Amino acid sequence: MQVIEVLREASKQVYQSVKNLAGTEDAAGDFGRGAGGDISRRIDIVAEKAVLDYLKKINFQCVVLGEECGRVELSDNPKGFVIMDAIDGSANAVRGIPFFCCSLAFATDNKLSSVTDGVVTDLHSGDMYWATKGKGAFMNEKRIYVQKSPPIYKIIGVNVSGSSPELIKKLQPVFKSSNHTRHLGANALELAMFARGLIDVYIDLREKIRVTDMAAGYLLVNEAGGFVLDPDLKPLDSDLGFETKLSFIAATNKKILDEIVSQIKK
Amino acid sequence: MQVIEVLREASKQVYQSVKNLAGTEDAAGDFGRGAGGDISRRIDIVAEKAVLDYLKKINFQCVVLGEECGRVELSDNPKGFVIMDAIDGSANAVRGIPFFCCSLAFATDNKLSSVTDGVVTDLHSGDMYWATKGKGAFMNEKRIYVQKSPPIYKIIGVNVSGSSPELIKKLQPVFKSSNHTRHLGANALELAMFARGLIDVYIDLREKIRVTDMAAGYLLVNEAGGFVLDPDLKPLDSDLGFETKLSFIAATNKKILDEIVSQIKK
Repeated sequence: MQVIEVLREASKQVYQSVKNLAGTEDAAGDFGRGAGGDISRRIDIVAEKAVLDYLKKINFQCVVLGEECGRVELSDNPKGFVIMDAIDGSANAVRGIPFFCCSLAFATDNKLSSVTDGVVTDLHSGDMYWATKGKGAFMNEKRIYVQKSPPIYKIIGVNVSGSSPELIKKLQPVFKSSNHTRHLGANALELAMFARGLIDVYIDLREKIRVTDMAAGYLLVNEAGGFVLDPDLKPLDSDLGFETKLSFIAATNKKILDEIVSQIKK
Repeated sequence: MQVIEVLREASKQVYQSVKNLAGTEDAAGDFGRGAGGDISRRIDIVAEKAVLDYLKKINFQCVVLGEECGRVELSDNPKGFVIMDAIDGSANAVRGIPFFCCSLAFATDNKLSSVTDGVVTDLHSGDMYWATKGKGAFMNEKRIYVQKSPPIYKIIGVNVSGSSPELIKKLQPVFKSSNHTRHLGANALELAMFARGLIDVYIDLREKIRVTDMAAGYLLVNEAGGFVLDPDLKPLDSDLGFETKLSFIAATNKKILDEIVSQIKK
């Protein structure tokens, strides 16, 4: 069984487990702080359990790195890491805003650039976005690409929730110049929509994003023809640690990137 | 036929007309500037035509105020105004981001506070939000209310697209204090979701919102138990003119309002 098939099936199990839970009181139950530092909600725990149960059932030889469960070694001789944010956009999921997803990725080594497979499933619609390194990105069975021609409305995803005053100040010209900034509240799903050609730039410079939030999205954007850069405009990379917090800019092409970068204050 | 039934049926006609158009190249066709000042897209025109055709067909005695078509007098002896943003969130609709709606309201006089009926239809899901003054707000057939108990995750809608540097500076503490700000890109649908209890505060102080964008959402929020205030914290009101640009804050209750207002810099 190919790694991508394992992730896709695990992701389907999550969709089945939570599709009637989002927006209910039951979804919100408090399970204490997870490995990533946020409060684990019942919907997070149910979703992670679906993945872990499936990986155990098929005896998949890996180490799981989960937003809630932390590091779980499912083998003494692992083939690599499953990087899991079983519910990305937990606040949306708990409140019932129809925009949250399951993000699963597989990496051969302890770094983001070694991610070989990624799956983001929209847990509201059930749409599945997936990619294998070197083989392109897909939405369900259709090949997807980032927006190639100049868009009629340029959509700029910007996350400034919990931002420092300094960062807001740096990004102020971006807000001023765009009538179409967005912040939908589920990083991995926003990157999947970016890969599908619906968003042109995505900026998150808060140093708050964890690798679990973006490993799959990172591969999707790269395989769909876009790029994901660090604040020094080098290809984003990092270890897979829970303590590692990332900032990044994703862009569909160099022209759009240069335009945005020229707006951001030094 | 009750006014609310007329608006609901017109809204259904829009849903039928555009449900296969969103996100297609066809949706984006340029029809020049509409009455509201933005470029009218084919999807906007198709949606407005559906409403106008229906109102003419049933011989509804009114004056239509439409984002694209401007003032259209359908009677010499009108009962009132139909305030129409047939596609709110046009950029999302054209790009295929599944978050846009049809907003229709009915007002007896040339002012927002005389709105008696409002319908917002989510044109992706087909869900219909509607309200009649004094009779409560509904989503499909279910009565809806704003969030009443303190929310687990407080969601703050903030629109700063195209904002002045001064406004960004004023709102900076709001971003700093919240990990859950959102901007989904369709004002009327965000107010409908607010009325349904999914968003707790909604801030748009850009002086850019037109009455057509928010007449229905305004009634939904009020009928669901929330309130919509102007920048001086008085109940929002205005004439129905196309040139009138509004700023507002919607909140579910006084406590949440006071908290946000104390954060906004003078």
